[in-house]
Amino acid sequence: MRDVRLGICGLGTVGSGVFNLIRRNSATIAASANRKVIIEHVGSRRNHPECDTSGLRVSKDIFEVAKDPDVDVVAELIGGTTVALDLVMTSIEHRKHIVTANKALIAEHGEKIFDAARRHKVMIGYEAAVAGGIPIVKALREGLSGNHVNWLAGIINGTSNYILSEMDSKGREFSDVLKEAQKKGYAEADPTFDIEGIDAAHKLAILTSLAFAVPLNIEDIYVQGITDVDQCDLAFAREIGYAIKHLGIARQTQDGIELRVHPTLVPKTSIMAGVNGVLNAVMVNSDAAGSTLFYGRGAGSDPTASSVVADIIDISRVLGNKEDTWIPALGCPLDMLAIQDIVPVDQIETCFYLRFLMRDKPGALSEVTKILGDAGISIEAIVQKEPPIGIDFVNVIVVTNVVVERDLNRALGKIEKLATVQGQAVIIRLERLDQ
Amino acid sequence: MRDVRLGICGLGTVGSGVFNLIRRNSATIAASANRKVIIEHVGSRRNHPECDTSGLRVSKDIFEVAKDPDVDVVAELIGGTTVALDLVMTSIEHRKHIVTANKALIAEHGEKIFDAARRHKVMIGYEAAVAGGIPIVKALREGLSGNHVNWLAGIINGTSNYILSEMDSKGREFSDVLKEAQKKGYAEADPTFDIEGIDAAHKLAILTSLAFAVPLNIEDIYVQGITDVDQCDLAFAREIGYAIKHLGIARQTQDGIELRVHPTLVPKTSIMAGVNGVLNAVMVNSDAAGSTLFYGRGAGSDPTASSVVADIIDISRVLGNKEDTWIPALGCPLDMLAIQDIVPVDQIETCFYLRFLMRDKPGALSEVTKILGDAGISIEAIVQKEPPIGIDFVNVIVVTNVVVERDLNRALGKIEKLATVQGQAVIIRLERLDQ
Repeated sequence: MRDVRLGICGLGTVGSGVFNLIRRNSATIAASANRKVIIEHVGSRRNHPECDTSGLRVSKDIFEVAKDPDVDVVAELIGGTTVALDLVMTSIEHRKHIVTANKALIAEHGEKIFDAARRHKVMIGYEAAVAGGIPIVKALREGLSGNHVNWLAGIINGTSNYILSEMDSKGREFSDVLKEAQKKGYAEADPTFDIEGIDAAHKLAILTSLAFAVPLNIEDIYVQGITDVDQCDLAFAREIGYAIKHLGIARQTQDGIELRVHPTLVPKTSIMAGVNGVLNAVMVNSDAAGSTLFYGRGAGSDPTASSVVADIIDISRVLGNKEDTWIPALGCPLDMLAIQDIVPVDQIETCFYLRFLMRDKPGALSEVTKILGDAGISIEAIVQKEPPIGIDFVNVIVVTNVVVERDLNRALGKIEKLATVQGQAVIIRLERLDQ
Repeated sequence: MRDVRLGICGLGTVGSGVFNLIRRNSATIAASANRKVIIEHVGSRRNHPECDTSGLRVSKDIFEVAKDPDVDVVAELIGGTTVALDLVMTSIEHRKHIVTANKALIAEHGEKIFDAARRHKVMIGYEAAVAGGIPIVKALREGLSGNHVNWLAGIINGTSNYILSEMDSKGREFSDVLKEAQKKGYAEADPTFDIEGIDAAHKLAILTSLAFAVPLNIEDIYVQGITDVDQCDLAFAREIGYAIKHLGIARQTQDGIELRVHPTLVPKTSIMAGVNGVLNAVMVNSDAAGSTLFYGRGAGSDPTASSVVADIIDISRVLGNKEDTWIPALGCPLDMLAIQDIVPVDQIETCFYLRFLMRDKPGALSEVTKILGDAGISIEAIVQKEPPIGIDFVNVIVVTNVVVERDLNRALGKIEKLATVQGQAVIIRLERLDQ
């Protein structure tokens, strides 16, 4: 078969990784793709010092690559959702297959892109858009394709996981770890996207669509970042056998799909609790396979390049085949995606970790447990910490059994009005990840 | 596209799971395969009470299925390597695509089967043969296809992992846990294949071939089971920060491939240490993706069926395509597999956990450390346990740095001859799983 000719747009962190991986492992890649993959054209405003582009066609205007009749596959590695969208749409119109690592682009404009691809008979690979080097798109779309997914839960933002891991293992404060993460390059100068959960929401939208055959939806995701996680809650959680992880969760319920990103207590005995540092992991619970977990590096030049190149190989192998034998971008034909209701967050059923500051006074605790009991909320564990000498207030930790969030909030409203309770309760959702 | 017609041979644990999964999730499966998958013919000597075969063609002679002109894909789910091999070869000769969950069959006869498949232009799916519901074959063959694999290490026998986990977490003895595992159905009446490491070796052979593009090879695997793991070594290992897992390990070195199955100390901080009970996990370290881990249920009716059905879907989707666009069974064309030397076990470089029984006498320890030091073996940790009152011998635990096994054995020969050392040392290999 003839060579596949690749256009690479963007020679930044990911682009340079892809460029060098294709050069370094060309024989392995050719063996897997059953044909050679050659870099035909590079679109980049500046040269990357680590990429030897001598002898290659290099254009400062990336749209030259999109329109190049000698290019079969365009790798969009410039990021963002404006020029990148134009580049991808232009490339599709010129009958190029697309590979991208751009989660925001796929989460926000995926269906428009997939629809254009269908019309122009090209494939879209986006394995690298979720969880870097972990082949989770392939796992959901192909590896578990015979299953109905019940739920999935992912540590899908390395920056947040790094910060929580450091806070937990070393007792450090949030702002301190964030500064260090920025120095080490684990966090951006403006870390909002990562620590506020937006990046995780983009990835969750893609995973959800793949898992439940629903349209891409980022608007309806409940999103909470890690900025409010207090050092002391990590310590209390650890004491009672839990780790706090920032999870993206999607769950099929009878009322629709739960779709949420937030800090979450998970049992120390769960494999998820062992996912530390910048690492990512996605747990998928499905009807036949049960719980499976996919773990690895969620970002970085080489791991992301690994997934980009895997997509290039997949596309290269089947290039001349009939379109109806290609794997659909979201696992099933676009017209089979079915809209489902998204469960409002106050109707979600889950367990909770609660912390109150309470006056150290006989009978105070029983007032709290009475309110919870009257609301039908059963208590899994309760811990009252000894107050430091001279301090009148103690921390009380309550772990509830499964309860509808709205019912919990109503009970908390009453508890916070008690004379013995000071200020607002700290509330963190808790998932056992076992059913 | 027309329906794909499946022949299922064997309605045992796996076969019945496949049968019912295809019936239960038929719409999902059709959406993924882009055509309906229907059960056309069942070959089984007896009916399974949970499978409703009414209206289906059922043959007591499974070879009727292999020869049925109305069958496109044969699922070989009878197990074993004699009749199963005949069935598969006959089916291939009748131009049936094959899906199997049979690790022994693929490990021992894979190349013969793949070669016949190539000649008769059919596909062979065997995702279910390794680690049950975990899509690890797909991950190695496609998800990481742009990488060079450095090493892989897997907990790939659920029975062994269950026994070690119970011994570790509950302080129980081997024979006691084995009996219980047999009662619960986690272990066979004759558990030899599992506890002696043979089943793990079959799976390691398949993983190795996929990871390093070498021919299937079970003869050269160094195999050690879990029968010699002592309760006290689990406890000592735990004390110094390690868990003992039964691992299948394959590593690319300059001298060839290390290929070994044995109990192994792994750091408690490694995600591998968190893989407990009957669960399986495979860690793959490759040049671009770094370390990735794939975790889930390694056996059982439904998880295995999940992988069988995923293979059926993959085959169904591309049935009419040209053979050179199919994914080769071992990730690259058969004629590109390259034989590599297998590193003899005494030339392997790794760390070790050693335990001696030593007379509690001044200077005894320094004799041991001197022998190790003279042999150039550096010590990572050394722990001497207090002897119980009235006992003269103490357990001494040594963790070495990386050393060639032959050099260690030579030093141990000298140590065991010391007057202060009683009997033979306990030796367990130790892997940090970090590079």
